[in-house]
Amino acid sequence: MTTFKGFAMKGLNEVGWIEKERPECGRRDAIVRPLALSPCTSDIHTVWEGAIGDRKDMILGHEAVGIVDEVGSDVVDFKPGDRVIVPAITPDWEDEAAQRGFSSQTTEPLGGWKFSNFKDGVFGECFHVNLADANLAKLPDDIKPETAVMLSDMFSTGMMGAENAKIKLGSSVAVVGIGPVGLCAVAGSAILGAGRIFAVGTRPNCVKVAKNYGATDIVSYKEGPVDEQILDLTDGKGVDSVIIAGGNMNTWNQAIAMAKAGSVVSNVNYLSGEDTVPIPRVEWGCGMANKDIATGLCPGGRVRMERLADLVRYGRIDPDQLVTHKFKGLDKVEEALMLMKDKPKDLIKPVVTIEE
Amino acid sequence: MTTFKGFAMKGLNEVGWIEKERPECGRRDAIVRPLALSPCTSDIHTVWEGAIGDRKDMILGHEAVGIVDEVGSDVVDFKPGDRVIVPAITPDWEDEAAQRGFSSQTTEPLGGWKFSNFKDGVFGECFHVNLADANLAKLPDDIKPETAVMLSDMFSTGMMGAENAKIKLGSSVAVVGIGPVGLCAVAGSAILGAGRIFAVGTRPNCVKVAKNYGATDIVSYKEGPVDEQILDLTDGKGVDSVIIAGGNMNTWNQAIAMAKAGSVVSNVNYLSGEDTVPIPRVEWGCGMANKDIATGLCPGGRVRMERLADLVRYGRIDPDQLVTHKFKGLDKVEEALMLMKDKPKDLIKPVVTIEE
Amino acid sequence: MTTFKGFAMKGLNEVGWIEKERPECGRRDAIVRPLALSPCTSDIHTVWEGAIGDRKDMILGHEAVGIVDEVGSDVVDFKPGDRVIVPAITPDWEDEAAQRGFSSQTTEPLGGWKFSNFKDGVFGECFHVNLADANLAKLPDDIKPETAVMLSDMFSTGMMGAENAKIKLGSSVAVVGIGPVGLCAVAGSAILGAGRIFAVGTRPNCVKVAKNYGATDIVSYKEGPVDEQILDLTDGKGVDSVIIAGGNMNTWNQAIAMAKAGSVVSNVNYLSGEDTVPIPRVEWGCGMANKDIATGLCPGGRVRMERLADLVRYGRIDPDQLVTHKFKGLDKVEEALMLMKDKPKDLIKPVVTIEE
Amino acid sequence: MTTFKGFAMKGLNEVGWIEKERPECGRRDAIVRPLALSPCTSDIHTVWEGAIGDRKDMILGHEAVGIVDEVGSDVVDFKPGDRVIVPAITPDWEDEAAQRGFSSQTTEPLGGWKFSNFKDGVFGECFHVNLADANLAKLPDDIKPETAVMLSDMFSTGMMGAENAKIKLGSSVAVVGIGPVGLCAVAGSAILGAGRIFAVGTRPNCVKVAKNYGATDIVSYKEGPVDEQILDLTDGKGVDSVIIAGGNMNTWNQAIAMAKAGSVVSNVNYLSGEDTVPIPRVEWGCGMANKDIATGLCPGGRVRMERLADLVRYGRIDPDQLVTHKFKGLDKVEEALMLMKDKPKDLIKPVVTIEE
Repeated sequence: MTTFKGFAMKGLNEVGWIEKERPECGRRDAIVRPLALSPCTSDIHTVWEGAIGDRKDMILGHEAVGIVDEVGSDVVDFKPGDRVIVPAITPDWEDEAAQRGFSSQTTEPLGGWKFSNFKDGVFGECFHVNLADANLAKLPDDIKPETAVMLSDMFSTGMMGAENAKIKLGSSVAVVGIGPVGLCAVAGSAILGAGRIFAVGTRPNCVKVAKNYGATDIVSYKEGPVDEQILDLTDGKGVDSVIIAGGNMNTWNQAIAMAKAGSVVSNVNYLSGEDTVPIPRVEWGCGMANKDIATGLCPGGRVRMERLADLVRYGRIDPDQLVTHKFKGLDKVEEALMLMKDKPKDLIKPVVTIEE
Repeated sequence: MTTFKGFAMKGLNEVGWIEKERPECGRRDAIVRPLALSPCTSDIHTVWEGAIGDRKDMILGHEAVGIVDEVGSDVVDFKPGDRVIVPAITPDWEDEAAQRGFSSQTTEPLGGWKFSNFKDGVFGECFHVNLADANLAKLPDDIKPETAVMLSDMFSTGMMGAENAKIKLGSSVAVVGIGPVGLCAVAGSAILGAGRIFAVGTRPNCVKVAKNYGATDIVSYKEGPVDEQILDLTDGKGVDSVIIAGGNMNTWNQAIAMAKAGSVVSNVNYLSGEDTVPIPRVEWGCGMANKDIATGLCPGGRVRMERLADLVRYGRIDPDQLVTHKFKGLDKVEEALMLMKDKPKDLIKPVVTIEE
Repeated sequence: MTTFKGFAMKGLNEVGWIEKERPECGRRDAIVRPLALSPCTSDIHTVWEGAIGDRKDMILGHEAVGIVDEVGSDVVDFKPGDRVIVPAITPDWEDEAAQRGFSSQTTEPLGGWKFSNFKDGVFGECFHVNLADANLAKLPDDIKPETAVMLSDMFSTGMMGAENAKIKLGSSVAVVGIGPVGLCAVAGSAILGAGRIFAVGTRPNCVKVAKNYGATDIVSYKEGPVDEQILDLTDGKGVDSVIIAGGNMNTWNQAIAMAKAGSVVSNVNYLSGEDTVPIPRVEWGCGMANKDIATGLCPGGRVRMERLADLVRYGRIDPDQLVTHKFKGLDKVEEALMLMKDKPKDLIKPVVTIEE
Repeated sequence: MTTFKGFAMKGLNEVGWIEKERPECGRRDAIVRPLALSPCTSDIHTVWEGAIGDRKDMILGHEAVGIVDEVGSDVVDFKPGDRVIVPAITPDWEDEAAQRGFSSQTTEPLGGWKFSNFKDGVFGECFHVNLADANLAKLPDDIKPETAVMLSDMFSTGMMGAENAKIKLGSSVAVVGIGPVGLCAVAGSAILGAGRIFAVGTRPNCVKVAKNYGATDIVSYKEGPVDEQILDLTDGKGVDSVIIAGGNMNTWNQAIAMAKAGSVVSNVNYLSGEDTVPIPRVEWGCGMANKDIATGLCPGGRVRMERLADLVRYGRIDPDQLVTHKFKGLDKVEEALMLMKDKPKDLIKPVVTIEE
């Protein structure tokens, strides 16, 4: 195979199948063929909102499980035929940002995010993975590709939201937005020690999974301002942690208002639209109420994926509940992506599986 | 009532019922009558091992749920008739140790531990609680006293073991000893993000609860050295955290040996017997392998109890599984204590309930 | 003395001397006479910007060193005649916020701040201190009152800015604003491990002290946008920590822009004026660049003051350099306050000393 | 140059000059010629105590500053002629231990320590450095090689002792042992926020530097048990942190005894001799006094060296004070090593400089 096809962003607002030359496999890298793929809302932002600017003929997608097709001469732990989880974020582990503890920010801000950002993504017959030994994780035999593909970005991101929220034993948490990432933030909160978990959302499918993942209270914006509802439900005390996984700029106002003095507001939402994120001054205690704000790009790399896979193996999380729509065959990636764009009411995440 | 009876340590190796004058209730304090009591292994250490030295006519017990009988004039949040969880540790919150973050160590090392240590414990018709507003927590209506009494010490201690072990998402953990505190350490590990959890123990009752609480592997010392087994099971890698909740001095050797370079060994065991705790030098990387050792006395006070109660209310923990033996009536506290001393095979924890 | 005089906010935009009844000393409290006082910019905000709303005849001031005049019957560690450092923040240590680690936020957001907020401040012949044993610290014999009064708020606040900024060994730090709090943030950064420290300011007096306190680079907004200058000086890398101790809402824009991906922006500025604090979205990595934002109200209480006093005694900090204007006699507190309002160019902090 | 000479451990208790083939330079590696070298006590342990077992013809030394002689084809940031600081610890940054935050423990426990452990050290005409881009740091023009060579191990190790000791603003610290690493621990404590610093030692040279580096009290074991002296000096309170940088196994007893309930004992000593490290049970609060024990191997790699170099450039530390004996010429490395073995009273550290 010297060329391969993939589903690409051809330019702003334009997608389609293209043919490309097979990428060269660097000595420490791998070429992988997909076994399971999933489109992400950020693919939609990229194409139809120009979130990262224009791109020409860039293959989309960054959530994949695959099978190794080729490895570079310096790769030690992987060989063709190995089934692997591919993280959305594939850091440069020797970079200074990694050495100081921020592996997602290597080489430049958000620089760990390469697929469908500044190199071709995973929606093709094959794709290139940098630093195979450090960034691929073996897919355990007892986990299906369509399960594990939820770990690449969704669980890594959502659970980072919970990790950054500094949840302590018995903390109360509000998760705003219960799309797939928000649901993972709910699951993450539950296995990081939270007591009461408020999930803010309305779609019945999402509400059901939120409860299964550990939400104790469902709050709907249709019933009134979310912050007021949560303050009411907590006798005016507010919550120890807020995780922002959806909403709009007004969400920040509500998040700060319902966070206790002495709390963390943790963002996992890819913010778009406005030039500034407005933090409400008075509710923020004029900058003195110990309401910290945490942000992050999901951790990637091999160890992250191995640990998330362990959470599946040992029954701590159940990614299958996120998958509402299943497709077979690489060509269905287009339909799956469009589903993500149209967001029908019963959608959480679509997955495309590809036969070996 | 000007006098009351209680079950006391009369001296080393001697227990019995005594009559005492009702304690005076300081302005910020409360007098509480028990609704549920549970004896602790440390009561046994105190009487029959002289662990804290000799005591004369000191009422035993530090695990209680009760009903407020009297409050001091400065108490704001509680009144007679309130049902309350009483933490085993009742700190002096204004003390310097509390101000620097160690509320269990106030006024002196281990000074937060007052009941059945340097003042009368809870095994009486009534008992005195210092700083009621800061140290009592209301018993939620939907939690039974016999459930909540497991929070006073068992869950607070066991879960502290997991907190101190610095478990991260997907960490592997070994809990050595699955008596009641070890079981709570298992539960704590599971809700603080652990992936694989090795529980080291053999008693069938304990093994069953360990699995229910989240243990994924049961390891028996009867099958060979524990460290070797766990190293085998992890392909020689060892675990990210070890929680010591039982065993003997040799346990330290094994714990250090099976901990990864870059790990925490967290102790919740009340160490007794030897003059020194032996840390194996070579397995400890000659003091350079980043295998840290954490210790602690269980956190007490109102907020701790409220948060543990929230974990029960929101379904994160299920204390009832610890309770294997139930008794009714204060006079049964003697029998319950003796059970703790004799440790029949099917025992995890006995509870005595007392009618209002 | 049944009445005493103090310098008060009579209402918005109006100050003056008033006579009040001597406060009653609660059982755990103390009445203190001042030995050294210092006005704070927040006194100015309070009176002339209505920052905390209207107040009628409220004595101003929260920075004091004094001599104990009376103690309540339950006070153990202090007696009349003791010379004491009085923290600006006097927490309720038994409150739930203190139990969860946020003692400045007790009873309500910012509730540890009582003096000249919701009770009379320290600019009087005497003033009331809640919880004397927990909130007063003995003035060491070798520290002058006019030195120690800089610890009550200025050093506690500025150094908290550095603590919250998560400085690590060799971190680069930018401190924006080098009024007294900013200067203390510089000093704090230097003794918490910073390497290069950029101090942003222009007043010669402040620049001189900034250098003495550890600043390595002085940046003036007059030379161009501060973020651009600091990015230039760091070869485009930015800094590991930014401490906001002055400026205006545009400062946030610059702070986020010059913070590395993987950094903390720590605020110690009392934010006023606008309804929202604008965080620049793109420079913030669309909420994914691991640029966290920390806020806080300065820690108070006895241990904090004792530890800051230790930093003076052991030569780690030199508060005297902040004091540019000295006055003698309580009646000079008015003049000192007006100086703070008018901010002459050579002013850092005025201090008023009062004879015993 | 196809062969080169170096000063080696020929076997247990035997050293001497040997000739070896020039190491091959891997694609990501570098070959470096030394400009400054310093022997370390661990070289002595290695040869004369068999601390790491037997070695045959292994070149000694792991503290070096040098000039790049050759780089592999994949090296980007360095070229022949660059002057570089070489850390004693050169991690494999893609390894799983690095990904989980323990870069000194990569590939195996202590595996970041390669020089003079499982590969040839730096005491030769040239030496091999793995992962040049990630592990070398440019020597700033304004720092001399003989200054910077103190950073490779001494400052990185000593300051790690202070970092691990969790010093907070105003903490009291005891540093036991004021050889070069202990002195760096004193310096580290001072720039990480300590108030009072007890330095335990007697040699006049070391005492002088300890004071210059920030020690406030000098304690001599000749005046009685160290723990008793420090407890006396602190009115029985003990210290917040103890750093063990010398002594013997009895030091552990004293360290635990003089640590407060709620403290950290941080070890930087390479422990040798006994099979077990004895922790005193009662002084340790029977394992419940929150006296944690931290260990570690000094952090290495490029960013660590750059940050330590920044501390020198910005005047936070002054490594030159450690250097008591200076030699010129590679052949003097033998004499310098013997000095380290004989430890004359006035020795802190010898340095050998080599002309380009």
